[in-house]
Amino acid sequence: MGIVVQKYGGSSVADAESIKRVARRIVETKKAGNQVVVVVSAMGDTTDELIDLANQVSPLPPARELDMLLTAGERISMAVLAMAIQNLGHEARSFTGSQAGVITDAEHGRAKIIDVTPGRIQAAIEQDAIAIVAGFQGVSQTTKDITTLGRGGSDTTAVALAVALEADVCEIYSDVDGIFTADPRIEPHARKIPRISYEETLEMAAQGAKILHLRCVEYARRYGMAIHVRSSFSEKKGTWVTSADKVGSADNEGSTMEAAIITGVAHDRSQAKITVVGVPDKPGEAAAIFRAVADAQINIDMIVQNVSAAATSLTDVSFTLPRGEGQTAMTALARLQETVGFDSLQYDDSVGKVSIVGAGMSTSPGISARFFEALSDAGVNIEMISTSEIRVSVVVAETQVEDAVRAAHDAFDLDADEVEAVVYGGTGR
Amino acid sequence: MGIVVQKYGGSSVADAESIKRVARRIVETKKAGNQVVVVVSAMGDTTDELIDLANQVSPLPPARELDMLLTAGERISMAVLAMAIQNLGHEARSFTGSQAGVITDAEHGRAKIIDVTPGRIQAAIEQDAIAIVAGFQGVSQTTKDITTLGRGGSDTTAVALAVALEADVCEIYSDVDGIFTADPRIEPHARKIPRISYEETLEMAAQGAKILHLRCVEYARRYGMAIHVRSSFSEKKGTWVTSADKVGSADNEGSTMEAAIITGVAHDRSQAKITVVGVPDKPGEAAAIFRAVADAQINIDMIVQNVSAAATSLTDVSFTLPRGEGQTAMTALARLQETVGFDSLQYDDSVGKVSIVGAGMSTSPGISARFFEALSDAGVNIEMISTSEIRVSVVVAETQVEDAVRAAHDAFDLDADEVEAVVYGGTGR
Repeated sequence: MGIVVQKYGGSSVADAESIKRVARRIVETKKAGNQVVVVVSAMGDTTDELIDLANQVSPLPPARELDMLLTAGERISMAVLAMAIQNLGHEARSFTGSQAGVITDAEHGRAKIIDVTPGRIQAAIEQDAIAIVAGFQGVSQTTKDITTLGRGGSDTTAVALAVALEADVCEIYSDVDGIFTADPRIEPHARKIPRISYEETLEMAAQGAKILHLRCVEYARRYGMAIHVRSSFSEKKGTWVTSADKVGSADNEGSTMEAAIITGVAHDRSQAKITVVGVPDKPGEAAAIFRAVADAQINIDMIVQNVSAAATSLTDVSFTLPRGEGQTAMTALARLQETVGFDSLQYDDSVGKVSIVGAGMSTSPGISARFFEALSDAGVNIEMISTSEIRVSVVVAETQVEDAVRAAHDAFDLDADEVEAVVYGGTGR
Repeated sequence: MGIVVQKYGGSSVADAESIKRVARRIVETKKAGNQVVVVVSAMGDTTDELIDLANQVSPLPPARELDMLLTAGERISMAVLAMAIQNLGHEARSFTGSQAGVITDAEHGRAKIIDVTPGRIQAAIEQDAIAIVAGFQGVSQTTKDITTLGRGGSDTTAVALAVALEADVCEIYSDVDGIFTADPRIEPHARKIPRISYEETLEMAAQGAKILHLRCVEYARRYGMAIHVRSSFSEKKGTWVTSADKVGSADNEGSTMEAAIITGVAHDRSQAKITVVGVPDKPGEAAAIFRAVADAQINIDMIVQNVSAAATSLTDVSFTLPRGEGQTAMTALARLQETVGFDSLQYDDSVGKVSIVGAGMSTSPGISARFFEALSDAGVNIEMISTSEIRVSVVVAETQVEDAVRAAHDAFDLDADEVEAVVYGGTGR
């Protein structure tokens, strides 16, 4: 008998019918002889509705109170899920993040887990009950106030609990069947990846694939917790996220295939590009620009600096950043114009990023060349390039993102024999 | 500088606009130099909506989980109220029942407060913050589970906190201006009572007046906490509920009036009457009947046993009980027919109860006679009678309840000089 931690996102518990369906699935897992701990997000659009309510009374709701408000969402879903399970004749008990021992720092809205002390959860499952835990929330070690973990919080709760309970697996349920070689809405031949390493998953997530949040994958990698990403709407096996040495192991349903060099193609339409035109090409100018952006708390992604035109000793610096932070960055940079002495600022939010990710590429030469040739053949113009050990990313015009995804998918033979019938979407929080 | 505890019911915080209005009132109280602790119910119909949701997944939701679910209601209202206050430039912090130190027994759905340890509330108000506390909820001392206090729970939370904090006053806000001499929807000349004793309030509440719940008045009486019942929709003074010796004191705005013998007229349309016909008039028969009803967990109110007809040695026993429990009682009694040997059972749910309440009646003879004469003059037929030291109640046909209220109000000179413009309703929980 092992411990299974399951996490169900908001779309899996959107209404009473969905909750009853999820309850039946949980009971099946229990009947199969497992001790079951379930982490649940708020129902459907609850979180957005609560944020709307907050904004009706305050343009900038205080973070402590916003956390108090939002945690009502999981309180509702977890209690109703526990009721639905009990109605099927199995004991179930719901626990808040605080009751489940999810101890965090005091950074409201983006708290970090600093300890997990799941004594009450352990007691519940030892008494043969199914434990239902509120995702996304914890309690501050110092202030004893209720905190939330921010985006991807429920996934992180699930992995952290799985680690603390020494669970066999952490199953993350959403409305998609697993992690795909590309977004099936763009590439109909996209294939579900049976196994993928933590590192590749991190690159995929960082490059825009929306299945798992960076944070939960980082947590799982640190403690070696296996994640099974799957759909709550089907019985299919999903994608196992494990350490690289287990990806090719014998129980891998994909291991009979020739190892693909590229694991998947990710894309991201949430970014914008800022170009600082006519920067004097001397030491310290680029540093001043990026210091200003960093001071405005903006995370930049890719940076490109052109070689300066010999005649003028001026250069252009381009970088990408989340679109939502574009206005803030432009304002911060405009204030620098006199001291740095650049010519102008250009803002472009009709860009997209396409990345190929795969552990195999570090030992296979010519991957970048094959990628760029494929893009060229598809008529896609590359605006910026960046690479890591296991990833090559390009920025292209937003209108060419889909062409670029399909071209890359085709160039690296990622196509499935059969088209998977799935809807590709986010996992909620 | 004193401590003021204010409680706002669901109708006072029904939407964002109401919450902003309540926030302004709270800030005014703070600005007047008070330390302010606010107890809040769930917004408007939230509780009913959550119960609906529970019933969609379970016909009989487990009590522990129902408590977990329902407490999400106050969590939402208290966080949003704290935001609205902060938006007015005043520090406010929300606290769950558990955080506020409301310690209860483990009886889910109807927990009793066994201790209040408001250390965090005290710290908050000493730091000049306004403390917002979730009404209706607490935490079990033994199981550490979340509990709810049942009907009238938020009022009880407010009084219990006021006692624990040694507050100057506990203000209970609803959508009515105070406690009236009768329901103004029935008796347009009903007058707001400026001061009333705990004992009279208890009798009024027990006899159907819906302003304050029995439980909170009992708690206030035990610890001598003054309650000020008033409307959150007006600035008018409301009704002070205090010990009897303070009701006639000099600061009583009503003390210049000649002391009324009767304080008010209450009515109750929630009851039904059961008559057990043809009970053998011998010892133990009535006991068997009421034992059966008690074993079915039914609270009966008034009991009347007729003198037996000499010829038959049979008697009729009638009693009143809440309508919702009528079916259960009839079923329990039907099972007794053979052993007790009565003729038949009659069930009548078209009855109502009208009561006159007043501390003055214990020293004034002829009150019952004057009451019965007034009813007779109004053509109202009395079906049952019961009395206490400070109350006389009659059961009449439901269609005659309003006539009876007006007749009693008129007979004891309770009419106001001016008609109060109010809407009379419940206080929510």
